[in-house]
Amino acid sequence: MRVEILCTGDEILTGKTINTNYGYIAQRLVEAGLEPCWGSTVGDDREALLAAFRQAAARAPAVIVNGGLGPTVDDLSQEIAARAAGVDLVLHEPWLQRMEEFYRRRNRVMPPNNRKQALLPEGAEFLDNPIGTACGFAVTIEGARFFFTPGVPREMRRMIDEQVIPRLLKQGGVTGVTRVKRFHSFGIGESRADQMLDGVEALAADGGVKLGFQAHYPQLETKLAVRGSDAADAASRLAPVEAEVRRRLGNFIVAEDELTLEGVVLAALRARNASLAVAETFTAGGIAARLAPAQGAEALFRRGIVARDLDQLRAGAGLAAATDGPSPAATEALAAALRQTSGASHALAVLVALDEGADRLELGGTILVGIADGGPPVVRQARLFGGRDWIRLGATELALDCLRRHLLGLPVDEQIDFERR
Amino acid sequence: MRVEILCTGDEILTGKTINTNYGYIAQRLVEAGLEPCWGSTVGDDREALLAAFRQAAARAPAVIVNGGLGPTVDDLSQEIAARAAGVDLVLHEPWLQRMEEFYRRRNRVMPPNNRKQALLPEGAEFLDNPIGTACGFAVTIEGARFFFTPGVPREMRRMIDEQVIPRLLKQGGVTGVTRVKRFHSFGIGESRADQMLDGVEALAADGGVKLGFQAHYPQLETKLAVRGSDAADAASRLAPVEAEVRRRLGNFIVAEDELTLEGVVLAALRARNASLAVAETFTAGGIAARLAPAQGAEALFRRGIVARDLDQLRAGAGLAAATDGPSPAATEALAAALRQTSGASHALAVLVALDEGADRLELGGTILVGIADGGPPVVRQARLFGGRDWIRLGATELALDCLRRHLLGLPVDEQIDFERR
Repeated sequence: MRVEILCTGDEILTGKTINTNYGYIAQRLVEAGLEPCWGSTVGDDREALLAAFRQAAARAPAVIVNGGLGPTVDDLSQEIAARAAGVDLVLHEPWLQRMEEFYRRRNRVMPPNNRKQALLPEGAEFLDNPIGTACGFAVTIEGARFFFTPGVPREMRRMIDEQVIPRLLKQGGVTGVTRVKRFHSFGIGESRADQMLDGVEALAADGGVKLGFQAHYPQLETKLAVRGSDAADAASRLAPVEAEVRRRLGNFIVAEDELTLEGVVLAALRARNASLAVAETFTAGGIAARLAPAQGAEALFRRGIVARDLDQLRAGAGLAAATDGPSPAATEALAAALRQTSGASHALAVLVALDEGADRLELGGTILVGIADGGPPVVRQARLFGGRDWIRLGATELALDCLRRHLLGLPVDEQIDFERR
Repeated sequence: MRVEILCTGDEILTGKTINTNYGYIAQRLVEAGLEPCWGSTVGDDREALLAAFRQAAARAPAVIVNGGLGPTVDDLSQEIAARAAGVDLVLHEPWLQRMEEFYRRRNRVMPPNNRKQALLPEGAEFLDNPIGTACGFAVTIEGARFFFTPGVPREMRRMIDEQVIPRLLKQGGVTGVTRVKRFHSFGIGESRADQMLDGVEALAADGGVKLGFQAHYPQLETKLAVRGSDAADAASRLAPVEAEVRRRLGNFIVAEDELTLEGVVLAALRARNASLAVAETFTAGGIAARLAPAQGAEALFRRGIVARDLDQLRAGAGLAAATDGPSPAATEALAAALRQTSGASHALAVLVALDEGADRLELGGTILVGIADGGPPVVRQARLFGGRDWIRLGATELALDCLRRHLLGLPVDEQIDFERR
């Protein structure tokens, strides 16, 4: 079923606030098997809103409106929804009581202008907002069903997932449930992943599985959206496809679903009662910043050292100055010394030798990753390109991934798409 | 003058790519004194594009279209522009030659489908793209002037600034030049800044200056957009307002225009031939990551140490374990010891004591910032709230700002809006 998305508000229209809500809503529609067909952005303006509502109603059977449900005079969604639907605004008593209770629990009195948030078009269907004062509602305007949602991102997300999507699926005659399985990988570009996964959707016996990608360098997210008559049906359709994706992407999958690469690394360390020390140059604390802030990382992440000068880094790990630059041997020695000084069971040393010259898209760098754990030393070397920021992001991910591979007993030097050999 | 923004492409429509181009275009229009009045997003679909062009033409005298100028079959902007304008597509010879040369310089042969990018609606005005193969063009459709721009962000930005905005100003009869002056501050919320700067716009003798804000926690950007008959006129209108903003926001301004807080800190260190070492706990490399990757930071940024456990941090700075937790005295001692071990002229120690319990919006933390430079010790203490991520971001900024203030001879303990005393 075709669904329009209409975002409202002067802050969005003028670019003062970047509109991230649109992308979330569109993605969730696609994952649920619905079709985002048109997007509009209008300001806090009565005539523009009315025109936008009417145009959207003429184009699609369902419209999601985001924003304009707040307590201030420029929040116009309820008013214009009532006008477009040809009804009056009426007080929704239960919501007024919920808001008063919301304030009472915080030992505050509800400001009088919040009452406006409980005025809904007569006959509107109430959409719950368990975490804010802007309730949503659904109303029919010129034959199309309109779903009004709050602009605050976390309130919008919950209402879209729990209230809007199920109603859209029902309206579109889509029965059953939707599930999205996610794989996070590092080292494979989108076009190669697309080739590698060619035909996997067909492995679902009766179909219902849709493959999609979202690239956010240096990781790639591979999504399988599945529809089934119930949870068990969805799971059984998904199972063969999920297993095949896991088999084909193999060691490049760094985490699944809500997990992260850094979370997987910390869990692997925790599982073996291990601890970690990290030495960094150009990644400059970027590796530490992924691991150390996690809840419970106090004991796992023992120590990080950052220096741009190799001798400073050596000194921090208790080594004397040396004359050679970054090399596999220097990386290995640094990791071993850091392990000893810090008392950690594992040490990760990451050196980056940037090419000479000004920053540019063609700029490259050599990344050296060393891991010491008391066993045979591990060193991984790679050439990355794309300018300073790109190299730094890639080196951080490569280092964390090498550590993950080493901890999980996987080969650390499988070639990745971003490196040139 | 009212201007519409029309973004095209299935990737944008379906939320696969987050649309950051819209916000850039809208902001630039506002800064130039133009009025973004409506935004639309449509997919790579002939009928939808045609309908969107016609509706936009009916609403505004000028429309910016973004995307759809690529070489592939789903790039439809030229084709639908020609159809809507009622003209044929004709080959723009000079652009074909430029593209062939573009490929020749890279020792490659132009793929045949790139030829499509030189087909423009007959009579269209050419808009140069000096950094890509998608040229822009302007054409009149049903009385409105349409400006077609590429979807690649850096190509779009340059074309909007250099080609589109000047033409829009001319079309709208807006003569003269626009300039935007930016102040980056830390420690003042948007609503307080708005109060503090009340009336500053009126200081421009004949007007022409517009005040605006953009909050990106923990910094706030204050913008002055000025219009003048020429550069000298714009500068003279801006001068009294700019001086007054600088006076009122005072020490809270961390940088202006293209400069950054970390850049100002590095410049202040460089100016006095100083060098820096940093010890971090919960900010976990976040402070090092702001300073160390900069070009030329090799000598300035001597060493960073990260540990979540205070004794590990002490050990990294050459201190024995101690029984006390984070305190002003412990922070002072850590900074002094780090300065000695690292050989840096300045040492910054940043300790964070998070409140107990699960992450939540009300979670607070105590931040301790210590600076050692051989003179009297400096310690700043603050309580921040807002959950783990918010506290980490705030602590990183607070520490960098304390160092900036100390290096520039400003008081380090002026209360900021985000702290509770």
